Amino acid sequence: MIESHIIDIKWMKRAIYLASLGKGRTSPNPMVGAVILDKNGNLISEGFHSKSGMPHAEAMAFNNLKKDARDGTIYVNLEPCCHQGKTPPCVDKIISFGIKRVFVSIEDPDKRMSGKGIKLLKDAGIKVHLGLCKKESKELNKSFIHKNITDNAYGVMKWAMSMDGRVGLKNGKSKWITNKDSRSLVHSLRASFDAIVIGGNTLRKDDPFLTSRGIRNPEPLRVVFTKTLNLPVKSNLWDCKLARTLVVYDASTADEKFLKRIPEGVEIEKLSSDNPILLSNLLAKKGCNNVFWECGPKLATSAMKAGCIQELMTFIAPKILGGVSSMNPFSDFEFTDMDEVFNLNEPETSFIGNDIYVKSIT
Amino acid sequence: MIESHIIDIKWMKRAIYLASLGKGRTSPNPMVGAVILDKNGNLISEGFHSKSGMPHAEAMAFNNLKKDARDGTIYVNLEPCCHQGKTPPCVDKIISFGIKRVFVSIEDPDKRMSGKGIKLLKDAGIKVHLGLCKKESKELNKSFIHKNITDNAYGVMKWAMSMDGRVGLKNGKSKWITNKDSRSLVHSLRASFDAIVIGGNTLRKDDPFLTSRGIRNPEPLRVVFTKTLNLPVKSNLWDCKLARTLVVYDASTADEKFLKRIPEGVEIEKLSSDNPILLSNLLAKKGCNNVFWECGPKLATSAMKAGCIQELMTFIAPKILGGVSSMNPFSDFEFTDMDEVFNLNEPETSFIGNDIYVKSIT
Repeated sequence: MIESHIIDIKWMKRAIYLASLGKGRTSPNPMVGAVILDKNGNLISEGFHSKSGMPHAEAMAFNNLKKDARDGTIYVNLEPCCHQGKTPPCVDKIISFGIKRVFVSIEDPDKRMSGKGIKLLKDAGIKVHLGLCKKESKELNKSFIHKNITDNAYGVMKWAMSMDGRVGLKNGKSKWITNKDSRSLVHSLRASFDAIVIGGNTLRKDDPFLTSRGIRNPEPLRVVFTKTLNLPVKSNLWDCKLARTLVVYDASTADEKFLKRIPEGVEIEKLSSDNPILLSNLLAKKGCNNVFWECGPKLATSAMKAGCIQELMTFIAPKILGGVSSMNPFSDFEFTDMDEVFNLNEPETSFIGNDIYVKSIT
Repeated sequence: MIESHIIDIKWMKRAIYLASLGKGRTSPNPMVGAVILDKNGNLISEGFHSKSGMPHAEAMAFNNLKKDARDGTIYVNLEPCCHQGKTPPCVDKIISFGIKRVFVSIEDPDKRMSGKGIKLLKDAGIKVHLGLCKKESKELNKSFIHKNITDNAYGVMKWAMSMDGRVGLKNGKSKWITNKDSRSLVHSLRASFDAIVIGGNTLRKDDPFLTSRGIRNPEPLRVVFTKTLNLPVKSNLWDCKLARTLVVYDASTADEKFLKRIPEGVEIEKLSSDNPILLSNLLAKKGCNNVFWECGPKLATSAMKAGCIQELMTFIAPKILGGVSSMNPFSDFEFTDMDEVFNLNEPETSFIGNDIYVKSIT
């Protein structure tokens, strides 16, 4: 019994690993992997969801079948779908191929769907095991789950600062606080995100490229959130050959005469206020499961306040910058007591050269 | 040959360990340990310098001798003294007891003495090996070495901040940013220091005790460095039953009429300016090998600038405080380019609960 449990864990972990191969390409869908064993417990097929619009993991695994799956077992990290989407329902395939046991790690987070696929399988006489490697599966699809529960994109905020908490000198210079390897890591981190958000200030000041430097193809959507629309005529983000760019403005304050500065090819959307949760919601609707916030102190503060941020990535360079007017990662939350401040959870540290990289959860 | 080397390393490490037992009590002297083997290589005595005024490590080891040390070996982490101080020269003892081999880890950092003890031993026909476990010995006595080279005390600066680099809320509240275990660690860290320095602002704002909570006996000297002498009439530091307190003021700016506020029992010294290096030098003259700087941003900045700080201890709490006018660990160094900033070396991290503790070297 224990031994068979260990084998089941092994195959479920394989399914999770296969799922992770789709990282950065499946949105708005989740990452899903599937492993099929024959009735004797031999591996006969595998699959994963490689991209939105492409076959689901289960479908790919059944497509790849070389041997008879009758009375076999399938391991899948997320509840199989039971609705006709861009592709046919996976539940039907599992039933029609004569599978006898289905291991599902977690239920579909979509409340309208949750448990329905499992019920259909059970109704067809299939034995369904739910919950194996639940923690790993939740971690893998935390963005998809968050988006389904909240209708907003999962937000990760990144900043680089010195050991005294400064994100730049008082004259505004911030190139470079962290080392080359940390900066390269940021490029590769971007590859896991569907969109990258900055504010108008960062665009005007840094004129960044905001790409993964080719690690992700297509590149993440680059988003500028502006109150004024007073954006520069020339900008690296206006070149949409590298990556798509979206300008989102607060229609209550922006001067739309500036719209003509923005070249064709750049997408434009308006929102009714500068509340970043509206942006998070808009991006979720556009199919982004997760968003990387690389913004300056002002937008960082309002995004934290609005609950757009689920995870923080802090790069701490072993430097002392000082400077009375130097920037900090955030501006004012108007906290008057230590009980009111944001408490972060599960901090983890690692070194990138001499830079300290801290990951934490809000 | 290699085997005998390993044995020598073992005994030298033992001498270093014995030396470390004097931690926090030997100043202005170094920490020294000594191990004596007989002519057959058997351990016959050990000693360490337990306190200024007490016997040197070598003397204690010879005092403890149970067997004949003739033709034996002594391991000592610092060059034996050859001058008459509070106690007789150790070199004479080593010679008179008929020791044949002396292992010395590092030379006396005092340039007037360096190498003299070793020369006298060699002149007496004793084989002297220099340099074993040099790195560990230098680390152990880094404060003593620094003071001998620079005439200033070795400075360690500590601050606690949030993940966004804030040392308090904008209303000044800073209790507590870090967790209880971090605060306890600070108390025990204090036990390794001869003096603890704060500025007048910290005294007025926090009214701290600045003790090791009894871990060190006597407690470190508590030092207030003030430009104005405008210190409160009541203060926890004025109670000198717990620990000695020293007020040091800048005679060029302080108003000496405030001196009458300071009760008897508190020591008072004046300096010609507010340059913290004068304070570091004064404390070194008073027998402090090392000083713990627990000061606010203003004094921290001038102490960093003046080269008073050799090591930094940063406690980072997993919290976001924000606040435009909130304090940072340092104020302005007037850096205008990233090439000018202070670069820290050898950062090391560890966790105290969820707080991150970072040690680095300036």
